Amino acid sequence: MKRNDAPRLADAADAPEVGRLLHDFNTEFGTPSPGAVVLSERLATLLASESMFAILAGSPAFAVALVSVRPNVWYAGRVGLLDELFVHPSRRSEGTGAAILEFLHGHALTVSIDAIEINVDEGDVDAQRFYERNGYSSIEPDTNERAFYYFQELRPPS
Amino acid sequence: MKRNDAPRLADAADAPEVGRLLHDFNTEFGTPSPGAVVLSERLATLLASESMFAILAGSPAFAVALVSVRPNVWYAGRVGLLDELFVHPSRRSEGTGAAILEFLHGHALTVSIDAIEINVDEGDVDAQRFYERNGYSSIEPDTNERAFYYFQELRPPS
Repeated sequence: MKRNDAPRLADAADAPEVGRLLHDFNTEFGTPSPGAVVLSERLATLLASESMFAILAGSPAFAVALVSVRPNVWYAGRVGLLDELFVHPSRRSEGTGAAILEFLHGHALTVSIDAIEINVDEGDVDAQRFYERNGYSSIEPDTNERAFYYFQELRPPS
Repeated sequence: MKRNDAPRLADAADAPEVGRLLHDFNTEFGTPSPGAVVLSERLATLLASESMFAILAGSPAFAVALVSVRPNVWYAGRVGLLDELFVHPSRRSEGTGAAILEFLHGHALTVSIDAIEINVDEGDVDAQRFYERNGYSSIEPDTNERAFYYFQELRPPS
C-alpha cells in the first residue's frame, strides 16, 4: 500500500465517491442497488450524522468501509456494524483491508464505540480467516458457540 | 395469553421494569450484567431516543423485547436489531413471544423501520424454528447461504 493510500475518514462531501464504490460493490456481486445517485443522497445525510461513518482509501478511492452505529444496553458506549468493506478487485492483496480495519478500531474508540460487529457468509472461509486475523471472533464467550444472522424485511429495499 | 397481557410499547418511565427483566434474563443464562440499576439508568435515556425501544407484556411485566435501531444505506428507512426477547420461565409456551413479534412488526412500520435482524445461536434449534415460524430467514437471497455473526470488543462491557 502506498503512503498516500492510507485510510481516512470520509466526510459528507465524500458521499458521491462512497456511493459510487458501494454501487460498484453490489454490481460486482450481482446484488440489487438503488444506484449511485440515490446512495449518494442518503450518504450525504447519514455521513453528517452520528449514526454512520465511512472510511476511504486512495485518491480516487479504490476501497471503502461503511459502518452504522446503534446503542447497546450492555455497553456504556455504542456498537458499530461493519455493513460493507470493499476493495476494488485491481487493488486486492495489498493490505488495504487490514489497514482499514486498523483505522476503524482506532476511530471507533474516539467516538464511544465499544464493539464492532460483522456478518460473514457461512461459506466465505477467506473472509472468516481475514476477520479472525484482525481480532474478530464468531464464538460468543457466554454460549461458546457461533450465532446465525436472521432477518425479516418488512418493506423491500428501495 | 390473557387479554390484559397484550404487548405494549414501553416508555421512559418503564425503564426500571425493563432493566429488571433484562437483568433477570442475563442471570438465568449466567451472562454478566451491569445490574438492574445501571441498566435502568441507561434505558431511561435510550427509551426516550429514536434509537431504541422496548416492548413489555403483563403487569407486572413477565416478558420484554429490546430493539436497537440503526440506519442502513440499502433501505429508505432504518433497520431494527432485536437485541433481547425474554419471557419469564413461568409464562412460556403461551404465545407471548409470537404476540410480541407481531406487535414489533406493526410498530416498526410506523417508525420507518424496513427490516428486523436477530442473531440466533447456532445450536438453538428451538429459537431458529420460532423465528422461522414468525417470518424470519437465515438465508440471504443474494448468496443463498447463511451468515455468521462476528464481533470484536474494543472495550469490555461495563
